Amino acid sequence: MRKIRLLATAALLFAASLVTQAEQTHVLRLAETWGPNYPILGDATRNMAAMAEAMSGGRLQIRIDSSNRHKAPFGIFDMVKAGQYDMGHTASYYYKGKIPNAMYFTTVPFGMIAPEQYAWFYFGDGMALMEKVYAPHGLLSFPGGNTGNQMGGWFREEINSLEDLQGLKMRTPGFAGEVMAELGVAVTNIPPGELYTSLERGTIDALEWVGPALDFSMGFHQIADYYYSGWQEPGAEVQFLINQRVWERLPADLQEILRVAMRTAAYDMYIQSTHASGLAWSRMQEEYPNVQHRTFPPEVIDALRQTTDRLLLEASENDPLAQEIVRSQQAYLQQVRPWTNISDRAYLNTVAPSE
Amino acid sequence: MRKIRLLATAALLFAASLVTQAEQTHVLRLAETWGPNYPILGDATRNMAAMAEAMSGGRLQIRIDSSNRHKAPFGIFDMVKAGQYDMGHTASYYYKGKIPNAMYFTTVPFGMIAPEQYAWFYFGDGMALMEKVYAPHGLLSFPGGNTGNQMGGWFREEINSLEDLQGLKMRTPGFAGEVMAELGVAVTNIPPGELYTSLERGTIDALEWVGPALDFSMGFHQIADYYYSGWQEPGAEVQFLINQRVWERLPADLQEILRVAMRTAAYDMYIQSTHASGLAWSRMQEEYPNVQHRTFPPEVIDALRQTTDRLLLEASENDPLAQEIVRSQQAYLQQVRPWTNISDRAYLNTVAPSE
Repeated sequence: MRKIRLLATAALLFAASLVTQAEQTHVLRLAETWGPNYPILGDATRNMAAMAEAMSGGRLQIRIDSSNRHKAPFGIFDMVKAGQYDMGHTASYYYKGKIPNAMYFTTVPFGMIAPEQYAWFYFGDGMALMEKVYAPHGLLSFPGGNTGNQMGGWFREEINSLEDLQGLKMRTPGFAGEVMAELGVAVTNIPPGELYTSLERGTIDALEWVGPALDFSMGFHQIADYYYSGWQEPGAEVQFLINQRVWERLPADLQEILRVAMRTAAYDMYIQSTHASGLAWSRMQEEYPNVQHRTFPPEVIDALRQTTDRLLLEASENDPLAQEIVRSQQAYLQQVRPWTNISDRAYLNTVAPSE
Repeated sequence: MRKIRLLATAALLFAASLVTQAEQTHVLRLAETWGPNYPILGDATRNMAAMAEAMSGGRLQIRIDSSNRHKAPFGIFDMVKAGQYDMGHTASYYYKGKIPNAMYFTTVPFGMIAPEQYAWFYFGDGMALMEKVYAPHGLLSFPGGNTGNQMGGWFREEINSLEDLQGLKMRTPGFAGEVMAELGVAVTNIPPGELYTSLERGTIDALEWVGPALDFSMGFHQIADYYYSGWQEPGAEVQFLINQRVWERLPADLQEILRVAMRTAAYDMYIQSTHASGLAWSRMQEEYPNVQHRTFPPEVIDALRQTTDRLLLEASENDPLAQEIVRSQQAYLQQVRPWTNISDRAYLNTVAPSE
């Protein structure tokens, strides 16, 4: 009798342990740089979380905190490293002050466009090099979505020569700003909320934001006529960060679910950016006939490129890992770009030669 | 005593049922058009199957049969429809003889490039229109991987005018072949295994295959000097097919695992194509200095486009659904292409103006 009672208890405990094992829920807290309901960039985290939850039958749940909650849009790296959050969604180049080599994994001026860069990440050395940079911080990093090729900015006057850049007051942050400053541009940093008014009142003559999809709601096209193609962020990839201890605690199936959900959400963001940019640019052209597309003249492009190359060389000359990354990216670009040129570029030029 | 024994038995049965429910394995049989270990296209099915199995902890298994097993590379549609196979990996336009509207979901001459077409599928009307075509056959269809922009082909002599196409013996199958025939090309169909010899001996003057990644192992670059950029398949997407009854039998979590595994495998194939094409084209250029890249002259492109437009109009004029698809694709292209032109195209032209 006691034996059978023990058997029943054992069977129930066994059943319960199976339930626990199969149904145990892992809740990961994710901090994103973006504000709540931020289009495209915020859609990527929600898309990732929804896929992970549905694929795991609810066993993997991602709780997303936007910047209004955590108040540290550029502190994602620190918070995930310290374990305050399990995951983050941010851009690697925001952290170049702390880890200089992080900047190469977002985009590089005159570098690869989105499909080329994904090829470098997944079929070249990109993932391995990114691991070398993040592993010492106890972090895993994964591509988190691409904005597509970013525009060079909104200008109130045309840029026809290097001369036209002298003293031009322009808001353009980060590495692109450093390059522009070397060419004589008066680079200023103005909070996003004041950009429209600053441009309207002439406090600045030009600014760079993202591309049609995110520029549209800022309204710059209402007060600046010239929209220049870019050189500075040919394929800006944001990133997912995960604390390595959190990753290691997940069972193998949930690790793979998380990996694939992040990978798909990243690709999806690139495609959503393509869609939203197409839609916004076609609306701008229809509703604002003042808006005209321009490309920088060759002498400006040449000067931008020479300055970029010099600054990249200076940034990497005393850091072997930086050199390894820069050389890998340059070698990969040399391998893949001739293919891009004879495929999509030749096709686009051939089917609409006049543009 | 009997009560307790019953309780013990019930507990054990409960435990067993939990095991059954949680661990029940779904094995899906997939037929692919490609031969065994076929690069890129075959990698896509293996990548998908590996992700599905790992994400499901082994509960979802995909058994892949290549064409050497099922002997029906162009019978995938029929076999999945009839339930002989649960899934397929093939190209939609192979089945235009049976369902004429299938052809629009692979690629269209002078149509969208890969990221534009993914945007149409996932953020435009593409998926809904594809469902309209496949649902009456009890099938679900999903994008299954993109080859990237396909090349126009290998030519032994340069094409400088429409005149040069008269009587040119060329292997180019499908819709592109119909268009070429209208321009005076003597279109022939030759099995893949005889292509190299046919080109070498002058049985044909030119041929179209895929792009550097898959052309390289065929060796055409050893016997033809001119490699032309394409117009006929700007972003060829292959497809996954699933029998709808099979899909409906899967629990919700496995459906989502399968959907996401297919979606990621498709994107991954596009990126792998980019990588492999870059590698192969750079090897061809290094090792075979005879190989020269060309684009067709404007009068040839204009004639190809006018003929394409006329044949597409004829194919769709008595079919309202065909018209809906063609109009949707044309409207989407008009919306998205101006964005591609001011972003990637302008960037590629600006940073290397001479090419």
